[in-house]
Amino acid sequence: MRETAVIGVGMIPFGKYPEKTIADLGWPAVKQALEDAGIDGRELGAAYCGSALSGMMPGQRILGRMGLSGIPVFNVENACSSSSSALRAAVLAIRSGACDTALVIGVEKLTRFGGGTLPLEREDWEVQQGMVMPALYAMRAKRYMHDFGLTERQLAQVSVKNRANGAMNPDAQMRAPVTVEEVLSSRLIADPFTLLQCCPTGDGSAAIVLADAATARRYRRDPVFVRASDLSSGKHTDGFRDMTMPEITVRGAGHAYEEAGIGPDDVDLAEVHDAFSIAELLYYEAFGFCGRGEAGAFVERGDSAIDGKVAVNPSGGLLAKGHPVGATGAAQAVEVVRQLRGECGDRQVEGARVGLAHATGGGISGFDHGACSIHIFSR
Amino acid sequence: MRETAVIGVGMIPFGKYPEKTIADLGWPAVKQALEDAGIDGRELGAAYCGSALSGMMPGQRILGRMGLSGIPVFNVENACSSSSSALRAAVLAIRSGACDTALVIGVEKLTRFGGGTLPLEREDWEVQQGMVMPALYAMRAKRYMHDFGLTERQLAQVSVKNRANGAMNPDAQMRAPVTVEEVLSSRLIADPFTLLQCCPTGDGSAAIVLADAATARRYRRDPVFVRASDLSSGKHTDGFRDMTMPEITVRGAGHAYEEAGIGPDDVDLAEVHDAFSIAELLYYEAFGFCGRGEAGAFVERGDSAIDGKVAVNPSGGLLAKGHPVGATGAAQAVEVVRQLRGECGDRQVEGARVGLAHATGGGISGFDHGACSIHIFSR
Repeated sequence: MRETAVIGVGMIPFGKYPEKTIADLGWPAVKQALEDAGIDGRELGAAYCGSALSGMMPGQRILGRMGLSGIPVFNVENACSSSSSALRAAVLAIRSGACDTALVIGVEKLTRFGGGTLPLEREDWEVQQGMVMPALYAMRAKRYMHDFGLTERQLAQVSVKNRANGAMNPDAQMRAPVTVEEVLSSRLIADPFTLLQCCPTGDGSAAIVLADAATARRYRRDPVFVRASDLSSGKHTDGFRDMTMPEITVRGAGHAYEEAGIGPDDVDLAEVHDAFSIAELLYYEAFGFCGRGEAGAFVERGDSAIDGKVAVNPSGGLLAKGHPVGATGAAQAVEVVRQLRGECGDRQVEGARVGLAHATGGGISGFDHGACSIHIFSR
Repeated sequence: MRETAVIGVGMIPFGKYPEKTIADLGWPAVKQALEDAGIDGRELGAAYCGSALSGMMPGQRILGRMGLSGIPVFNVENACSSSSSALRAAVLAIRSGACDTALVIGVEKLTRFGGGTLPLEREDWEVQQGMVMPALYAMRAKRYMHDFGLTERQLAQVSVKNRANGAMNPDAQMRAPVTVEEVLSSRLIADPFTLLQCCPTGDGSAAIVLADAATARRYRRDPVFVRASDLSSGKHTDGFRDMTMPEITVRGAGHAYEEAGIGPDDVDLAEVHDAFSIAELLYYEAFGFCGRGEAGAFVERGDSAIDGKVAVNPSGGLLAKGHPVGATGAAQAVEVVRQLRGECGDRQVEGARVGLAHATGGGISGFDHGACSIHIFSR
């Protein structure tokens, strides 16, 4: 099996760009990634574009704008893990020998998307009854607080940490640091979440250039390697289901650690899917960064800070960097690669050698049947 | 590189099912394909679902309905070639060694889609000026008639042939045979196309189970092999562009023939993308079934009939079988596999040994920047 490496990364600052089209949003990230790799876009073997809500052929629209026609393009959709699934598909293409280089794009435009509600099929019963994302995660948070004594201040600390990290990231949508008091006094969204515990909506794009190991070394002396690439879907469990244990991420983490031949102690930084404050805490445990029920104390002690045991979401995560759905997975990989190269300035994780990216998507039924894509990278 | 084979196929009759959801449409095709393969769905290594307009996670919605949670699912979008692109991605997954079996689903629901118009970005200038699909293909037809003396009766003969084939296909949406006179006297849509020269809109699904060669032989004594799998995107050509030569299909056909080690004379049957009557004629030439400008005479002589030199669209094609966008590529592969197995009853192509499937997608800019996926199969 051919090894796969990242030879270029790029992204635009996440934010609100209501006047821009998908092509407007996407091409600057691609250009940055191509320049970072030092590759001519016409040499690309294939492109994989992840987006959840862009309509037909976003990849072709972006590459067409750049005059890069003729490259085989796959558009991949998997809700919040769209571009991490695209990354997975591109890794498989390189491993299969179908191409030596591949471009991964993540792109999304949530502004001007019609108010934030999606067309529902009549069988989305739970969503129709109000079980939208903030409500779902709020239930998980309440249960976790009940089971493990998590405090509101500990929960708020996730937002404080990630906003502090985002303040050091020029690509983050939210760049103002906040205090625990500010988090707790912001507008209530779904008890126990206040506004500052929910990721913002916005627009964005990110891009990654992959190559097989031999090709990669022609472009960079020291590429970052993809040590594990996993896509899992959730397993439905009849009867009792533990809301505070994200089965899909637990299983995916196991696959990824096994493939990379490492364990949680080897991870220096992790970009995880903190769509709401509680989510990041659940993922500490799912990835084994701390034991069951210990996540509140873990964040409170600073163990997930940039200078902690494992730097979680040094980019600011979804809570501060933003969450333009289909762009998120690719942007997480961009951050991990930049950290492993030591390019992150004030938010650099010192001596980072191993990093992981984790994007998980899907709705209520998606908790069972969604998608979770995990990648582990190292020099 | 591991060889890939088809071990099971299934589809629902294409038609109008306004009351059905995506899961309702999809699961019966998947069930049929699993039963055809004799595989337990829980053994599948991955699933690739192609759909253009189903919203988020159609693959998970279908598999979730069947209780098949836990299988990694990729949703692939490439307009009309969505499920053929999904097939290509699944082939690469098997070749890469990531999985030994993979399910490919194609699904689409066009009824109740809001009247048939899509949300447009402001940069779709040509479509905004009226250059919708029937208009685009009508221009190609007019040009071809001008350049090569194609007659209206020859053009109509494509619909006559495909409706005759569809009359023998229980899965076809349009099952009434028509005469040249009926085609020419049907309602004018975009000169020279009458209604019966345009594919119908409808709903549908199709499914394919793939396996690597060793695994395939555990399920079937005589699987059908994927001899070539190609996805190409169009190349923009500055200045003059020949509207009657589909560059993307010409290039893709070259790739596919080279990979399979065959030429046009080896092809016994071809399911090609006859969205409009002229399209099938252009593809005869793009695949080398006849020379430049000879397509009108080719169909008129019966060379593309079921008992002709190469049976083109024995299923009835898009014109008769129907064209639920994302389901089309998978359904083409289903027909080719059934033909190669000799299961097609009255429409059986006698002695069929090599078949190809061709789905091409994308709009005006898609003529340049779209997607064209070609697969060649043989026993």
